[in-house]
Amino acid sequence: MDEFSNLKSKLLAEQVQDQLFRYILNTPVPVGNKLPNEFELGQKFGVGRSTIREAVKLLVSRKVLEVRQGSGTYVISTTPADLDPLGLRAVEDKMTLALDLVDVRIMLEPGIAEMAALHASPEDVKKLDLLCRKIEKRINDGESYIDEDIAFHSCVAECSRNVVVKQLVPIIDTAVLMFVNITHQKLTDETVRTHRAIADAIAEHDTIGAKTAMMMHLTYNRELIKRLIREEP
Amino acid sequence: MDEFSNLKSKLLAEQVQDQLFRYILNTPVPVGNKLPNEFELGQKFGVGRSTIREAVKLLVSRKVLEVRQGSGTYVISTTPADLDPLGLRAVEDKMTLALDLVDVRIMLEPGIAEMAALHASPEDVKKLDLLCRKIEKRINDGESYIDEDIAFHSCVAECSRNVVVKQLVPIIDTAVLMFVNITHQKLTDETVRTHRAIADAIAEHDTIGAKTAMMMHLTYNRELIKRLIREEP
Repeated sequence: MDEFSNLKSKLLAEQVQDQLFRYILNTPVPVGNKLPNEFELGQKFGVGRSTIREAVKLLVSRKVLEVRQGSGTYVISTTPADLDPLGLRAVEDKMTLALDLVDVRIMLEPGIAEMAALHASPEDVKKLDLLCRKIEKRINDGESYIDEDIAFHSCVAECSRNVVVKQLVPIIDTAVLMFVNITHQKLTDETVRTHRAIADAIAEHDTIGAKTAMMMHLTYNRELIKRLIREEP
Repeated sequence: MDEFSNLKSKLLAEQVQDQLFRYILNTPVPVGNKLPNEFELGQKFGVGRSTIREAVKLLVSRKVLEVRQGSGTYVISTTPADLDPLGLRAVEDKMTLALDLVDVRIMLEPGIAEMAALHASPEDVKKLDLLCRKIEKRINDGESYIDEDIAFHSCVAECSRNVVVKQLVPIIDTAVLMFVNITHQKLTDETVRTHRAIADAIAEHDTIGAKTAMMMHLTYNRELIKRLIREEP
């Protein structure tokens, strides 16, 4: 293989890695479950088995997948190790972790939304509106909106003009990827409505409106997690 | 040199690295300033020049020091790169960063103190009391108490029993190292008094007391930073 085809096949494997990761999140393939075999995955993504093998290797190195000799490829986490600067993958009780994470978001994000309402520029307002509409479309199409959801909260953080917040919120919100299998496709109406309320309040520089809308948004999440904890076997 | 003396000299260089870092924080040697030469440092710490050279190398690799050929060794940051997971070293305007950091702490830490008052064990209460007394002794002796200060806030975070808080607070509070030259040895009375108020409220499981004492503690810090920003040339 020459230099150029080598590069091309690397780029392809990276793209397929991304598709495969989205497939795991969106299907969803829960942690502990087995992936379809290379042949099936190759057909699904329209690529050869060697590309699938490369993509799997990439997700193994990011500790999302594990290959068990003679048995198959298993999902071991929905949080790539490189997206886990807080080291939360190691926490065993994922439900408690989900609750602890939402409690931290409740301490931080309403105050951040308040600062965002104070400082957002017309461009920020447009970006938030666009993200709200993208999320609504994803939900209407029955698709996962996790990327856009993280982008929405990161954009609010960006609007705050606080450099620490800008670094911190993406870390915290990316941790939400860990529970994508838990809260997947629930609370869609509430999400659409409260995201919109947050975006509108920020557009009007209504600080209290932004703060309370964010609080309401996170309270729906907290109630869902508490309900799931209560219903656990 | 045999294996064993090699190991011994490595351990010595690491100890001297630590002493040298403390020396930079406590003197303080401000960012941009030059260190005394190897000979002087060797005398100060009672070690040879080769040990000083090793210790300097370690702090160069952690991006605290920079060796300028033919000129000397300079302090380029008081935050070792390995203690900066938020990448705040890169922010140029340190005063704005100090304010942004205290704003984030004000959003988070009063709620954390509240949770700590709810969950602290008798052992936690003892540990907080000990840390308060250590900080008080350091201040009375005119020494830096930055390590104990970070330990105090990390202990409160630990008491919260929230796994995300436990990971997050040390990251945020370690960032305070960055401003050690700015806020060094100021607010000592207020620190002693408000740390004690936080510890007492946690000991009594007084959630509102802990929350408001933490708020007061951080408000003193915020007022100091605002004052310093106003007085900047």
